[in-house]
Amino acid sequence: MSRRIRIVGIGSGHPDQITLEAAAAIASVDYVIAAAKSPDDPLLEARREICRRHGNPEVIAVPDPERDRMDPADYTGAVTHWHDARAAAYEQVLLERYGDAAFLVWGDPMLYDSTIRVVERIHERGNVHFDWDVLPGISSLQVLAARHRIVLHEVGQPTVITTGRRLHEAIADGAENIAVMLDAHLACADLAEPAQWHLWWGANLATPAEVLVAGSLDSVLPRVRREREVAKTASGWVMDTYLLRRRGSRR
Amino acid sequence: MSRRIRIVGIGSGHPDQITLEAAAAIASVDYVIAAAKSPDDPLLEARREICRRHGNPEVIAVPDPERDRMDPADYTGAVTHWHDARAAAYEQVLLERYGDAAFLVWGDPMLYDSTIRVVERIHERGNVHFDWDVLPGISSLQVLAARHRIVLHEVGQPTVITTGRRLHEAIADGAENIAVMLDAHLACADLAEPAQWHLWWGANLATPAEVLVAGSLDSVLPRVRREREVAKTASGWVMDTYLLRRRGSRR
Ligand SMILES: C[S@@+](CC[C@H](N)C(=O)[O-])C[C@H]1O[C@@H](n2cnc3c(N)ncnc32)[C@H](O)[C@@H]1O
Ligand SMILES: C[S@@+](CC[C@H](N)C(=O)[O-])C[C@H]1O[C@@H](n2cnc3c(N)ncnc32)[C@H](O)[C@@H]1O
Repeated sequence: MSRRIRIVGIGSGHPDQITLEAAAAIASVDYVIAAAKSPDDPLLEARREICRRHGNPEVIAVPDPERDRMDPADYTGAVTHWHDARAAAYEQVLLERYGDAAFLVWGDPMLYDSTIRVVERIHERGNVHFDWDVLPGISSLQVLAARHRIVLHEVGQPTVITTGRRLHEAIADGAENIAVMLDAHLACADLAEPAQWHLWWGANLATPAEVLVAGSLDSVLPRVRREREVAKTASGWVMDTYLLRRRGSRR
Repeated sequence: MSRRIRIVGIGSGHPDQITLEAAAAIASVDYVIAAAKSPDDPLLEARREICRRHGNPEVIAVPDPERDRMDPADYTGAVTHWHDARAAAYEQVLLERYGDAAFLVWGDPMLYDSTIRVVERIHERGNVHFDWDVLPGISSLQVLAARHRIVLHEVGQPTVITTGRRLHEAIADGAENIAVMLDAHLACADLAEPAQWHLWWGANLATPAEVLVAGSLDSVLPRVRREREVAKTASGWVMDTYLLRRRGSRR
């Protein structure tokens, strides 16, 4: 029987947001590897809680390698370097401890997460032999849509999922339904025609500090900034995501 | 206490793909309303199975109103009309039977699904009084990515989610990661430069008849067509979704 590595999406905050198959996968492994930004990383505690509820496998917190200050001219190079460092750190754990292991991924592994790439890299290096699979989880974007009770798009329309860094590009390309993640600086505050956009925003979704704001972009921005601070104070951290939709125009 | 309507995402095929909170929601209601295309609609049976496993609420199958042959010139008008007909049919059930009810949505309610709009409409009509909420579910797109063990995009890049009908528009707008749903006619077979695109395709995902194909678009199309027929023969129905990524180019 081959050794098994499982990449498990765990949802975006609430422990009941996990699927039955993901819970069973966690209960099936010998240990769980969790990336930790610091020893008291609050997202690490959320992972521990999920493990306690499902078979209680040991959780091995692996400190995240320092991410070099990003050189915007070589963003991809810097990310590759960081993936290599992560792969080496996880490989070390897998070599030291035999058994099946799970990587718990915040939200869904298919969106803005490096775990799949890192595990692929470990596999290619060939020092550890294993089979691996991926189980989807509820992304923060899905929680955003559910809480606001919206569909991502108008009937039959497309949606672009992008980052704060690339929001302006999406708008220049004509996108009218835009879901934004990884935007610590609220890139939507700089849009040329804020009254043209409707915003559905949420922070710390699926946690006790969840906050939601919706309305015309021009009128709700001050409230978004305020609520962002409220969530941060309540949790010690803040993560937010939002959907922008251009008003009225449907091509 | 107010009456409660819950819109519950149930995942895209396998009953273990439901979240703990969605399972609890189903177990909490007095009955479940399920749209049925025909009395032996196979997706209806999947919903019944999920209900049996979680509190066993009664399932009321509501025949889907006939969808008029779509007039492409008035697609939106035709859809609105169909939403009205659905709202009337569900309202009828809610008026006849008191109690909390759930609508089970295939995949996630935020993507190409009308349940949110229809429930909103029933609420606005004002004949039935209720509170309503939405619980996310694993979308077929997430199953596609998990099975192929891929992230939807290259590092930090955007992804467009669209329909077969609008695939060519997305490409004309410069999209390089494109997830396609609702494409019975395999619109990707008509792309101008098929060798420029990598395809990850899946049909009847998360069911026993699941099939996957991946490779350069020009070389895998015949296999996709074949596998699509295999899935259809095995299940009596076929639904497929795919990701296209432009090779090499990263802007
Ligand atoms: C590295 S990405 C990971 C995304 C994750 N894989 C997902 O599917 O949600 C981190 C970004 O996800 C979003 N995010 C994650 N959890 C969130 C939450 N609970 N509330 C709001 N946004 C969240 C934020 O946009 C954040 O910048
Ligand atoms: C009306 S849309 C509903 C989408 C659904 N809300 C979701 O999140 O997956 C139907 C489309 O979803 C996709 N789909 C749904 N279930 C699927 C499955 N099990 N395998 C592959 N594609 C599926 C197909 O593209 C299909 O045309």
